[in-house]
Amino acid sequence: MKINDLETPALILDRKAFEANLDKMDALLKNTSMKLRPHYKSNKCSEIAKMQITRGASGITCAKLGEAEDLAKAGIKNILIANQVVQLSKIKKIAELAKSCYLIVCVDKTENIVELSLAATEAGSQIHCLVEYEVGMKRCGVDTYEEFLELAKIIDKCDGLVFEGIQAYAGHMAHEHSKEVRIAETIRIENEITGLKKYVEENGFKVKEVGGGSTGTVEQKPKESVYTDIQAGSYIFMDNAYRQLNLGFKNALFVLTTVISTKKDRVVTDTGVKSLGMDQGNPIFLGVPEDSPISMSEEHGAVYCEHNFNLNDKLLYIPGHCCTTVNIFDEIYVVDGDDVIDCWKVTGRGKAQ
Amino acid sequence: MKINDLETPALILDRKAFEANLDKMDALLKNTSMKLRPHYKSNKCSEIAKMQITRGASGITCAKLGEAEDLAKAGIKNILIANQVVQLSKIKKIAELAKSCYLIVCVDKTENIVELSLAATEAGSQIHCLVEYEVGMKRCGVDTYEEFLELAKIIDKCDGLVFEGIQAYAGHMAHEHSKEVRIAETIRIENEITGLKKYVEENGFKVKEVGGGSTGTVEQKPKESVYTDIQAGSYIFMDNAYRQLNLGFKNALFVLTTVISTKKDRVVTDTGVKSLGMDQGNPIFLGVPEDSPISMSEEHGAVYCEHNFNLNDKLLYIPGHCCTTVNIFDEIYVVDGDDVIDCWKVTGRGKAQ
Repeated sequence: MKINDLETPALILDRKAFEANLDKMDALLKNTSMKLRPHYKSNKCSEIAKMQITRGASGITCAKLGEAEDLAKAGIKNILIANQVVQLSKIKKIAELAKSCYLIVCVDKTENIVELSLAATEAGSQIHCLVEYEVGMKRCGVDTYEEFLELAKIIDKCDGLVFEGIQAYAGHMAHEHSKEVRIAETIRIENEITGLKKYVEENGFKVKEVGGGSTGTVEQKPKESVYTDIQAGSYIFMDNAYRQLNLGFKNALFVLTTVISTKKDRVVTDTGVKSLGMDQGNPIFLGVPEDSPISMSEEHGAVYCEHNFNLNDKLLYIPGHCCTTVNIFDEIYVVDGDDVIDCWKVTGRGKAQ
Repeated sequence: MKINDLETPALILDRKAFEANLDKMDALLKNTSMKLRPHYKSNKCSEIAKMQITRGASGITCAKLGEAEDLAKAGIKNILIANQVVQLSKIKKIAELAKSCYLIVCVDKTENIVELSLAATEAGSQIHCLVEYEVGMKRCGVDTYEEFLELAKIIDKCDGLVFEGIQAYAGHMAHEHSKEVRIAETIRIENEITGLKKYVEENGFKVKEVGGGSTGTVEQKPKESVYTDIQAGSYIFMDNAYRQLNLGFKNALFVLTTVISTKKDRVVTDTGVKSLGMDQGNPIFLGVPEDSPISMSEEHGAVYCEHNFNLNDKLLYIPGHCCTTVNIFDEIYVVDGDDVIDCWKVTGRGKAQ
């Protein structure tokens, strides 16, 4: 099958660019103290997660219980839910899931820890816990070394739970445009977490894992980082938001679209915001001048420029944000040049619970 | 089941507000020359489409072939695809679909009309065509009366096709904040389309249907409008973008979320931009001061304010945009007060092709 035979909008993965991205990340982490624990939120595709494990990833990071269940079903044996799970029905499912894989969850509150312990005890399983430490996202996590230690102590006393280490994800730096700011903030966080690890270990708790890091900050980390596990996700695909940081990864993910209407000054395609994650800005239309004005509605994307396109011609978009784009699609078509060589299910599509 | 038993994020429909919206639209159109042909893009739920037909809708409008197939499967007999379909494989599917229902598509180019005719002839079906007229969206559609007439003539000569009328959707006015501008532009378009209809009919072609109109502009239309079919979709749900226009419809659609982390100055929930359409701006968190700063990431929504929320408490969001929010979910939970009284499948979820 050729790419132009696909009905559109279709999600397209350029196999060569994708593999180059996998290689680049391996090269970045080679000869460092860090391993890759790639984030599933970006691809939601168990085929890709299995490839990452085969290449030596320490496990897979995901955001939600639903994604973890999807990964376990695919045979992934080491899964981190980098999030707080607090609903009782979900906690019970986590305790069940922990029977079949090495399951880690993040915590930042005593009552949550107690409920996880009760569920694990009842299920006869063991749940591993990373205590989340707030490094600037202003989201979840504790704010002080003392609060952190307090939770580590509680986990340690709770049946069915194992204290695993520190979650310290600096999402606020992932898309920081200034490389200087990214470097400075990465060093600041590195020092703060190094101090935290030391403090926790001096108080008798082994810190096995320190998780965090993103596509935007992995290059800034020192070779002997306090981080043991890098949770980058977008590096395999890239998108227009990351493209602007010139990180050296290739754009491998595209949305294929068909020209459905034309005028002298415009091209209208069949792909709008229902097929493109718009939370990190506009997509790029390839094949037209980059500064052309665009207008995106639900099922239409229009670009205003002089052009030579005809009805039924194909265009490619680079999505503004890869993660929220993949989240909308049911499959990814893998292409090599003009050939469609594979079709991978987005097995974690919509698993936001 | 109670609403608080649902795992979150969950899409919630307030049955009473929803029914009030259905009633309000019926009242708006009563004693006018217009019928409702509600847009499926907003709900993608065949259960709702069937209700709208039962209440007297002339048919259902949708945006894509995939949605039309979904509607036909649910037994809807009069379906308008308010869009140009140009891929040959899709055109063949349209011709097949037209065997089982009264199917209308929009056209704005001769070559598209010719291919629809060939496919209909081969399938032995009849495809009805609305010629799209551009009224300000700068998207699809012809620009002049003469171009319009030329296409009507071609459709009329083409075997397997029937000229149905005019598509003139003023999407650029749907969210116009100034009521004065909405009124003035609606009048301008009304006059232009009245002139077009007269011109086309004087040249020998009966205009059976004039389609367009949205939740934002229906109130502005005259009782004896040139429009025969109002294609409003959002009126049943509403969202934060429409809420700001004070149209008198109720917010009936919500995303239920769980508090997963708290500090004195913040509430963090388990619902982010992967469960909320963000293309028309931020959602509203109910139960916190409306001017509180918020921060939305993929799977987290944080609001910064003093509060009394605890872990596991439930919050409701009003989505920024109902259509792109529904597009992400697989089901809609229907609630009456605290009771979950039904669960409807989003049968058209992700059908963007």
